[in-house]
Amino acid sequence: MRKRVYTILEPSAWRGKGLSPVNKVICLLILVSVVASIVETEPEVLKGREDLFSILEYSLTGIFAIEYCLRIWIAIEKPEYTGSIMGRIRYALSFFAIIDLLTILAVVLTVFGTAPLLLRLFRLGRILRLARLGRFSSALNTLQRVLSTRAPDLLISVGLAVTIHIIASTLLYFVEGRIQPETFGSIPRAMWWGVVTLTTVGYGDAYPITVLGKILGSVTAVVGIGVIALPTGILAAAFSDAMDEERKKSSGDEN
Amino acid sequence: MRKRVYTILEPSAWRGKGLSPVNKVICLLILVSVVASIVETEPEVLKGREDLFSILEYSLTGIFAIEYCLRIWIAIEKPEYTGSIMGRIRYALSFFAIIDLLTILAVVLTVFGTAPLLLRLFRLGRILRLARLGRFSSALNTLQRVLSTRAPDLLISVGLAVTIHIIASTLLYFVEGRIQPETFGSIPRAMWWGVVTLTTVGYGDAYPITVLGKILGSVTAVVGIGVIALPTGILAAAFSDAMDEERKKSSGDEN
Amino acid sequence: MRKRVYTILEPSAWRGKGLSPVNKVICLLILVSVVASIVETEPEVLKGREDLFSILEYSLTGIFAIEYCLRIWIAIEKPEYTGSIMGRIRYALSFFAIIDLLTILAVVLTVFGTAPLLLRLFRLGRILRLARLGRFSSALNTLQRVLSTRAPDLLISVGLAVTIHIIASTLLYFVEGRIQPETFGSIPRAMWWGVVTLTTVGYGDAYPITVLGKILGSVTAVVGIGVIALPTGILAAAFSDAMDEERKKSSGDEN
Amino acid sequence: MRKRVYTILEPSAWRGKGLSPVNKVICLLILVSVVASIVETEPEVLKGREDLFSILEYSLTGIFAIEYCLRIWIAIEKPEYTGSIMGRIRYALSFFAIIDLLTILAVVLTVFGTAPLLLRLFRLGRILRLARLGRFSSALNTLQRVLSTRAPDLLISVGLAVTIHIIASTLLYFVEGRIQPETFGSIPRAMWWGVVTLTTVGYGDAYPITVLGKILGSVTAVVGIGVIALPTGILAAAFSDAMDEERKKSSGDEN
Repeated sequence: MRKRVYTILEPSAWRGKGLSPVNKVICLLILVSVVASIVETEPEVLKGREDLFSILEYSLTGIFAIEYCLRIWIAIEKPEYTGSIMGRIRYALSFFAIIDLLTILAVVLTVFGTAPLLLRLFRLGRILRLARLGRFSSALNTLQRVLSTRAPDLLISVGLAVTIHIIASTLLYFVEGRIQPETFGSIPRAMWWGVVTLTTVGYGDAYPITVLGKILGSVTAVVGIGVIALPTGILAAAFSDAMDEERKKSSGDEN
Repeated sequence: MRKRVYTILEPSAWRGKGLSPVNKVICLLILVSVVASIVETEPEVLKGREDLFSILEYSLTGIFAIEYCLRIWIAIEKPEYTGSIMGRIRYALSFFAIIDLLTILAVVLTVFGTAPLLLRLFRLGRILRLARLGRFSSALNTLQRVLSTRAPDLLISVGLAVTIHIIASTLLYFVEGRIQPETFGSIPRAMWWGVVTLTTVGYGDAYPITVLGKILGSVTAVVGIGVIALPTGILAAAFSDAMDEERKKSSGDEN
Repeated sequence: MRKRVYTILEPSAWRGKGLSPVNKVICLLILVSVVASIVETEPEVLKGREDLFSILEYSLTGIFAIEYCLRIWIAIEKPEYTGSIMGRIRYALSFFAIIDLLTILAVVLTVFGTAPLLLRLFRLGRILRLARLGRFSSALNTLQRVLSTRAPDLLISVGLAVTIHIIASTLLYFVEGRIQPETFGSIPRAMWWGVVTLTTVGYGDAYPITVLGKILGSVTAVVGIGVIALPTGILAAAFSDAMDEERKKSSGDEN
Repeated sequence: MRKRVYTILEPSAWRGKGLSPVNKVICLLILVSVVASIVETEPEVLKGREDLFSILEYSLTGIFAIEYCLRIWIAIEKPEYTGSIMGRIRYALSFFAIIDLLTILAVVLTVFGTAPLLLRLFRLGRILRLARLGRFSSALNTLQRVLSTRAPDLLISVGLAVTIHIIASTLLYFVEGRIQPETFGSIPRAMWWGVVTLTTVGYGDAYPITVLGKILGSVTAVVGIGVIALPTGILAAAFSDAMDEERKKSSGDEN
C-alpha cells in the first residue's frame, strides 16, 4: 500500500512519462492557490468575495496538509531516508518538506495572529508555494549544474559589471552631484541611475543633464550593455548545450 | 487545366525557385490590403478618401474571393485531399482555408451589419490577412520545429521568469504598497511594474522611490534580464542551427 | 611613378600590414572633417568661430579634391579599369568614386547656392564622408557576405517581428483607442508605441493605462523581445563564425 | 623568511587552490574600504559618524601601507624582478604597484590638503582600490586575451554602430531640429537621443514627436539594436569559448 502511494506521489518513482495524474492535480492546485493569493491583494477583486477566497484558501491548505502527511509517511521508501522514525525526521528537515510545512503553517496561524504585519508575512508564505513546483522539475537540476560549472565565468562578468557600475556612478556623482543633488548627490544615489542605465531599463526618473554628464552617461550605457550582456550570453549558451546533452543521453538510454 | 492552375497556385508544386508570379502578385495584394486597413484607421488619412479605400477594399476582396474558389477547385490535386467533394470539404476546414474565408466574410458582412463593434471586428478580420502570407513561407516550418524541439528548455526558462516576476512584484507590493498605492497597492498592480522592468522597457510610469524598493528593484532588473534573455538566446541559437542544417540538406540534394 | 602612387593610395595594393601612412592620414582627415561638420551645428560651439570652421572645411575639401584627382589618375592601374579614358570613366562611376565627388561638390556648391535648405543638404553631404571610410575596411565585405548568406533567416525573423508589431498595435488600438486617442487613436499611432515597446526603448510617451491594455502590452513586450532578439542573435553568431574562418584562412596562407 | 612571505602574498606562488588566507583577508578589506568610501558620500549615513569612518579609513590605509612595503620587499623573489634595488624599483613602477601607492597617497595627502576639489579627487583615489582586486583574478587575463583576439570584429561592429549613430542623429536634427530646438537643435544634441535610443535605455527626456521623426526613430531603433548587439554577442561567445578551453587545459594538466 505505502509502496503504491510512493510511486504515485514521488516524481522520480513514477514509471510513465512526465508526472503522475495525482501530482498533476497537485501542481494545478498550487497554481490556483498562488493565483488566488495574488489576485486577492487587489481590493477591487476582493471586495464582497472575502468568504469565497477564505473557503478556497482553507480547502486548498487542507488538501496540502493531507499531501504533507502522506509524503512524511512514504518518505522511508526512499533509499536515503531509511529508519522508520529517524528517516522521516530527516525527510521533514529537507528543503521541500520545510517549504511544504511553512506554507501550511502560514495559513493555519492566521487563526491565532491577526496583526497586519503578520498577515502580510503569511501572505508571502502562501506565494512561497510557487517554490513547491520546483520538486516536479528535473530541468532545474540541469540549470543548477550549469550555474555551478559556469560559476567562475559568471562571477568574473558580474564582478566586471559591478566595477563598471561603481566607476560610472562615482563619475556621475562628481560631475552632476551639485546640479542634481536629489539624483546624484551621493554615490549610493547615483548607483540607482547606474543600475537603471546599465540594465537599459531607463525609467526616466534619473538622467544626466550636463554635457559632460551626458558624455559619461553615453560611454557607461555603451560599455555597460556589453558587460551586462556577458553573463546572459554565457548562461544561455551553457544551458542550451547542457539541455542538448541531456536529450542525447536520454535518447541513448532508450536505445 | 486544373493541374496547371494547381502548379501555379500551390507553392509546394511550383518547380521554379521561390514563388510563382501569380503567388507573388497575391502576396503583394495581401500586403497592400493590410497596409490599407492599417492606414485608413488614421482619421487624417481617411478624411475625404473614404470612397477610394472602399473601392480598393472591395476590389481586393473580389480578387481574394476568386483565389479562394480556385484553391477549393484545385484542392483535390493534393494527395492528402482526394475525393472530389469530401476532399474539398476537408481542404476548406484546413487552417489557411478558414483564414481565407474569414477575411473575405469580414468584408462581405460589412454590407449587412454596421454596428461600430462589428465594424471593428471586421477590420481586425482584414488585418488577419497577414496570416495568409504564412502559406508561402517554408522557413516558418523550421521555426515551428525548433520551437517544439526546444519546448522543454523554453518552458523552464519561461517558468523561471514567471517565478522571478511574481517574487519581485510581491516584494515591491510589501515595500512600496502603502507609499505608492496607485502603482504598488496590490500584487497585480505591482506586476505591471515587474513586466516593464524585467523586459527592460522601463516606460517610467512605475518605479520604486524608497531606498529598500530601489535595492529590490535593482536586484530584480539585474537577475531578471539574465532570466528573460535565456529563452531568447536558446531560441536564436536553435533557429540559426536548424536553418544551417536545412541549407546543408538542400545543397546536398542538389549535388 | 603612377605605379608608386597606386601602391600608396590603393588599400589592396599596399604590401605592408594594415593601411599605408598616406591612407592613415586620409582616414584621420575624414574623421576630423566629419567631427567638424557635426560640432559646428551646435550654435554655442560655432559662435565666433565661423571663420575657423570655414577655413578647416575648405582646406580639407582641397586635400580631398587632390586625392580624388589622384585616384582618377591611378585608376587604370587596376586590372578591372583598363583603357586610359574609358577605364577612368568607369572608375568615376563606381560607388566610392561617386561618394568622393558628391562630398567635394557639397562644399564647392555652397559658394553658389545659399538657400537654407540647400545648405542643410550640403551639410548632410559632408557627413556622408563617413561612408568613404568603408573603402579602407576589408571586414565590411565579410559582414556583407554574412548578411547575404543569412538573408532568408533574417527575413523570416524580421517578417515575424513585423507581424507581431502589427497585431500588437491593432489590439491596443482596439482596447485603448477611445481612452487615449492621441496615442492609440489609430493603428499607425499605436505602431509608434509598438516599436518603442518591442525594441524595449520605452521612452514613456506612450503606454497602456487600462487593465486589458496592460495585459496585452505585457504579452507584447515578452513575446516581442524574443522575436526582436532572433535576427540579432543569428547575425552575431554568423558574423563571429565568418570572421573566425577568415582568420584561419589568412593564417593558413601565411604558413 | 622572505620566501615564505612571498608564497603567501603572491597569488601565482600559492600552491593551494584559490587564494591564500592572507590574500582573502586583503580582498575583504579592499571591499570594506570601497563600500565605506561609497557609503560615506551619503550625508544621511555620514552625519554623526564622521569619526567612525575616519578611523576605519586610516586603519585600513595603515594595513594597506604595510602590505605595500611587504610586496616591495618580496618583489625580488619573482624571476622578472631580479636585482636587489633595480628589481624593486622596476616592480614599484608596475601597474598594480602604482595603483597600490596612489590609493595610499590619496588618504595620506588628505592631512595636508583640504580644498574640496582635492578631497573629491582623493575620494576617487580610494574607490580606485577596486582595481587592486584585479591582481587576484586569473580570468581577467582570459578576458583581455579574448578582447585582443576579437579586436578586429569588435572594432568593425563598434565602427558600424558609430556610423549608424551619426546618421540617425543627423537625420533627426534635420527633421526635428526646428520643432524641438532643445533636444534636436544641433547634431551633438541629437546624438544624446541617439545613444539613449540605440542602447534602448530610453529615459524619455528626448524623443521625436513628428510623424517623419517617429518613422526615422523607429528605423533607428530596429536597425540599431541589431548593430549594438553585434559586439555583445561576439564578445560573449568568444569569452565563453576561451573559458571552456582554459578549463579543458587545466583539467588536462591535472591528469
